[in-house]
Amino acid sequence: MESRASMAPTPGALPYYVAFSQLLGLTVVAMTGAWLGLYRGGIAWESALQFNVHPLCMVIGLVFLQGDALLVYRVFRNEAKRTTKVLHGLLHVFAFIIALVGLVAVFDYHRKNGYADLYSLHSWCGILVFVLYFLQWLVGFSFFLFPGASFSLRSRYRPQHVFFGATIFLLSVGTALLGLKEALLFKLGTKYSTFEPEGVLANILGLLLAGFGVVVLYVLTRAEWKRPPQAEEQALSMDFKTLTEGDSPGSQ
Amino acid sequence: MESRASMAPTPGALPYYVAFSQLLGLTVVAMTGAWLGLYRGGIAWESALQFNVHPLCMVIGLVFLQGDALLVYRVFRNEAKRTTKVLHGLLHVFAFIIALVGLVAVFDYHRKNGYADLYSLHSWCGILVFVLYFLQWLVGFSFFLFPGASFSLRSRYRPQHVFFGATIFLLSVGTALLGLKEALLFKLGTKYSTFEPEGVLANILGLLLAGFGVVVLYVLTRAEWKRPPQAEEQALSMDFKTLTEGDSPGSQ
Repeated sequence: MESRASMAPTPGALPYYVAFSQLLGLTVVAMTGAWLGLYRGGIAWESALQFNVHPLCMVIGLVFLQGDALLVYRVFRNEAKRTTKVLHGLLHVFAFIIALVGLVAVFDYHRKNGYADLYSLHSWCGILVFVLYFLQWLVGFSFFLFPGASFSLRSRYRPQHVFFGATIFLLSVGTALLGLKEALLFKLGTKYSTFEPEGVLANILGLLLAGFGVVVLYVLTRAEWKRPPQAEEQALSMDFKTLTEGDSPGSQ
Repeated sequence: MESRASMAPTPGALPYYVAFSQLLGLTVVAMTGAWLGLYRGGIAWESALQFNVHPLCMVIGLVFLQGDALLVYRVFRNEAKRTTKVLHGLLHVFAFIIALVGLVAVFDYHRKNGYADLYSLHSWCGILVFVLYFLQWLVGFSFFLFPGASFSLRSRYRPQHVFFGATIFLLSVGTALLGLKEALLFKLGTKYSTFEPEGVLANILGLLLAGFGVVVLYVLTRAEWKRPPQAEEQALSMDFKTLTEGDSPGSQ
């Protein structure tokens, strides 16, 4: 336990898994760009190509950046807690802004073309996930970055924040898959069943998206890879333990 | 710690969450049946309705029963470990058989109608999940129910089994959502955007499917709700701890 309190050694396999997650995540972003460039005419704001801003922004924001924001506590194991927290919060802000641009793009595109909004399962899931993401950020900010919340309140809320953070990330990946499927079926229709190159590329993209979700979840949940509490946090945690009765969720 | 070793009290909120998960799961099964009955002509093996066997079996097997198999360790907290294990394994066998019937139904339907197999993202994810589910069952059986594996081997494999079990369940829910979306877009096409009753019903079914996945995951991951080790297991675990160096994954 002595080594933990000062400078915990990084678990041997962790960097490889993190590197693999980044390789997968960047491949997903690049393949989304390639799919839109090769088969959908590329990206622009002021034309029919405005729609294509939507999938690219959502994949960069709510899949890649959101996933990386969750990994921050595994990657920066020995930085000060506050620095890591601020980085975690900031990555989520970037993810949110990019996703907002992606949302504006699709609503604006629908409006210009007279298409209906929010009728599909993809759009229902998407709006729900976006609102939950915003609420999670607000509640997380007020508990962990705003100075008001007490140590005991933070400790009780932390497991909920972690669970809902991971859940919102997984729902984002699921919503991206639904959107990809929708885009494919609308354009390809029955040609999808003839193994058109676009369909095969998009299927592989879908599997890689799901793979990114699984690898991030694995790194996040592996017990030995959790961020060890640092000297000053451990002292606080001891105080807290003697103050409260029973097991605290984090001590199990 | 004394009360834990003999008869641990059930955490207060757990039964409500389990009841809620069952209510959601049964609603999902009933709504899938209602959707197929109201808008797809019902179910039969020897006709065009054979396709409809597929979604119903998959939702009962790979969503509802698979989810319940994961909850067994939270619900039967004070039964003998072996009884709980056998129930966990058996529920997965039932889920697997029902899913197999669902798979045979769709391949047989495709063959009779000359449709292509395995071209869509839904089918790729589905086959992958089904194979992973089978492998997970085989590996789980040989480690935990077959008498050969040592205590230390089981302890090392357990966290992997739990992670991949939860992941395969979530991938099953995601695959079901992709299939639902596919069935909707193939039949409704552009009518989907006019808020057809079938589309709205299926969207709600999709949200409930995702909701079932989230609630099962919540019950499964909440630290205080984990099954406490029983008297004889605890004694074994102590022996194991003194035999091995460092922290075992389960002790964190």
